[in-house]
Amino acid sequence: MKFAVIGTGAVGGYYGALLARSGFEVHFLLHSDFEHVRDNGLLIESRDGDFVLESINAYGKPNDMPGCDVVIVALKTTQNHHLPAILPKVVKENGIVVLLQNGLGVEREIAKKLPQATVIGGLCFLCSNKVGPGHIRHLDYGSIRMGQFSREETAAGITDSLKFVADVFGKAGISVHLTENLGRARWEKLVWNMSYNGLSVVLDANTDQLMNDPATRRLVEKLMAEVIGGARACGFELADAFAQQMLAATEKMVAYNPSMKLDFEAGRDLEIHTIYWRPIQSASDNGYEMTAAVILARLLEYLDRHNPRNHRCQTKSLR
Amino acid sequence: MKFAVIGTGAVGGYYGALLARSGFEVHFLLHSDFEHVRDNGLLIESRDGDFVLESINAYGKPNDMPGCDVVIVALKTTQNHHLPAILPKVVKENGIVVLLQNGLGVEREIAKKLPQATVIGGLCFLCSNKVGPGHIRHLDYGSIRMGQFSREETAAGITDSLKFVADVFGKAGISVHLTENLGRARWEKLVWNMSYNGLSVVLDANTDQLMNDPATRRLVEKLMAEVIGGARACGFELADAFAQQMLAATEKMVAYNPSMKLDFEAGRDLEIHTIYWRPIQSASDNGYEMTAAVILARLLEYLDRHNPRNHRCQTKSLR
Repeated sequence: MKFAVIGTGAVGGYYGALLARSGFEVHFLLHSDFEHVRDNGLLIESRDGDFVLESINAYGKPNDMPGCDVVIVALKTTQNHHLPAILPKVVKENGIVVLLQNGLGVEREIAKKLPQATVIGGLCFLCSNKVGPGHIRHLDYGSIRMGQFSREETAAGITDSLKFVADVFGKAGISVHLTENLGRARWEKLVWNMSYNGLSVVLDANTDQLMNDPATRRLVEKLMAEVIGGARACGFELADAFAQQMLAATEKMVAYNPSMKLDFEAGRDLEIHTIYWRPIQSASDNGYEMTAAVILARLLEYLDRHNPRNHRCQTKSLR
Repeated sequence: MKFAVIGTGAVGGYYGALLARSGFEVHFLLHSDFEHVRDNGLLIESRDGDFVLESINAYGKPNDMPGCDVVIVALKTTQNHHLPAILPKVVKENGIVVLLQNGLGVEREIAKKLPQATVIGGLCFLCSNKVGPGHIRHLDYGSIRMGQFSREETAAGITDSLKFVADVFGKAGISVHLTENLGRARWEKLVWNMSYNGLSVVLDANTDQLMNDPATRRLVEKLMAEVIGGARACGFELADAFAQQMLAATEKMVAYNPSMKLDFEAGRDLEIHTIYWRPIQSASDNGYEMTAAVILARLLEYLDRHNPRNHRCQTKSLR
């Protein structure tokens, strides 16, 4: 049984290293860190104990990788245009793809490209950063909520493939919660993501700062209510109380920088398309306009295009 | 005939100096620059020619000032809580108050406090900065649109007081355009102010940057349309085409930092209350919700409360 990790960063590197440490055969695809990781392995600093994987199966090109039974995709969704070239080479026929990504609509693209594959979506509740080449710092949490994508866009239920992946991840010490309705789970995560991610970038603020100021707290509440409205328009009956639960959970968390803020600070492209525009479009297709989210998405587009730390923007401004 | 200027900064210092240079008796109230200006006068750098007023009537306290016939108020509206203590000492009974301020609702407060006075509102189309104590740099434009406040909140028409002030300002070389409907003129200016001011602070961008990016251009258009909707709800029939005129005029302007951006950079309190909350409240009272403006106002409140250059915020964070 062979596993692959596509995108060996804060998410893929962390979960892949846990699987490899537990004895599973894991093949890691890397990009900029390839040579460093091939020569030095992966270093995981974690509140659960640091460890080093000195020798790992590292690849710089998908063509060099073996066909795998379970392929974990942990790229930023801004890199998903690479997947059609990568996945057919790495996923065995009838293999399983586990997408550990944010936003909406990511499973459908893969399912179209790989008609024989089982596609599973995973929502990670994980605080981790890549702090250097092959060097991942796990700060807190780590559980994954997983559901199977259904080509009929209905709830797929708890399938054998899901149970299998959960079992494997469980053996590696990763807590997995299964959901029979992946679409609903994705919208639930969007209630948090569409609220905190965008505001944290626009205001350069962490979750504590956003919760402690009355103006931004009201913005968070407004955005959460709007995402719940969008979910309902799309057929997922989230309760109003869900927003209150998210707010309470966030207040209990340590001050946290959402992934989009970390991306912005690191000069990476922002996941505006999958975290904002896709849900906004889905809701709009169902007659619900997410006005506040649209404003936030446009502010983010401006900031993304003018991010002084983003090499793409630097190149642009040289023209 | 005596004139007073309350708030001798980029706006009041510039216009007051033009009046004084033309031979009018002008009394200037100053705060932090008082001693410097008393000893050194005012220096105006202007594209129309630099000049120095070496000896001016400078005051540090309103009690020292004579009663004046025309009192020009050019404080930031964030300082308007000082006016009830200042104006009764400086404005002659039956005097004229000319409010050169941004936002909505500023005339009504003064009219309540001074029931005998004539209250005139002036909208300045002026690019000028205070670059040092008593040192004002006039960059461009300079005309003022003036209308008389009516205690009945109807259009006051072109009154004799208005004509008198326009005549005096005209003699000093200041171009004044009179409006019979001050309320409408204020909403027209809000179409520009509520769009560019807030976005320029949130995104740290000048007008050119906001116009050249498709995302922010759409935000500007959305905000302008919303302000026009608010004006209509309040009984001022602005045409849709007015937004297009503002956009075209702004594109023709040199890259410009709106006053709120200059305030933010200088660590001054932002005029969120008069430029955002008052019009938002007026529109809401008339059944029209300015959703986008509310979001922008809340973002601004957060930034205003956390402005690292604002002494008030620094004090707060030391607690």
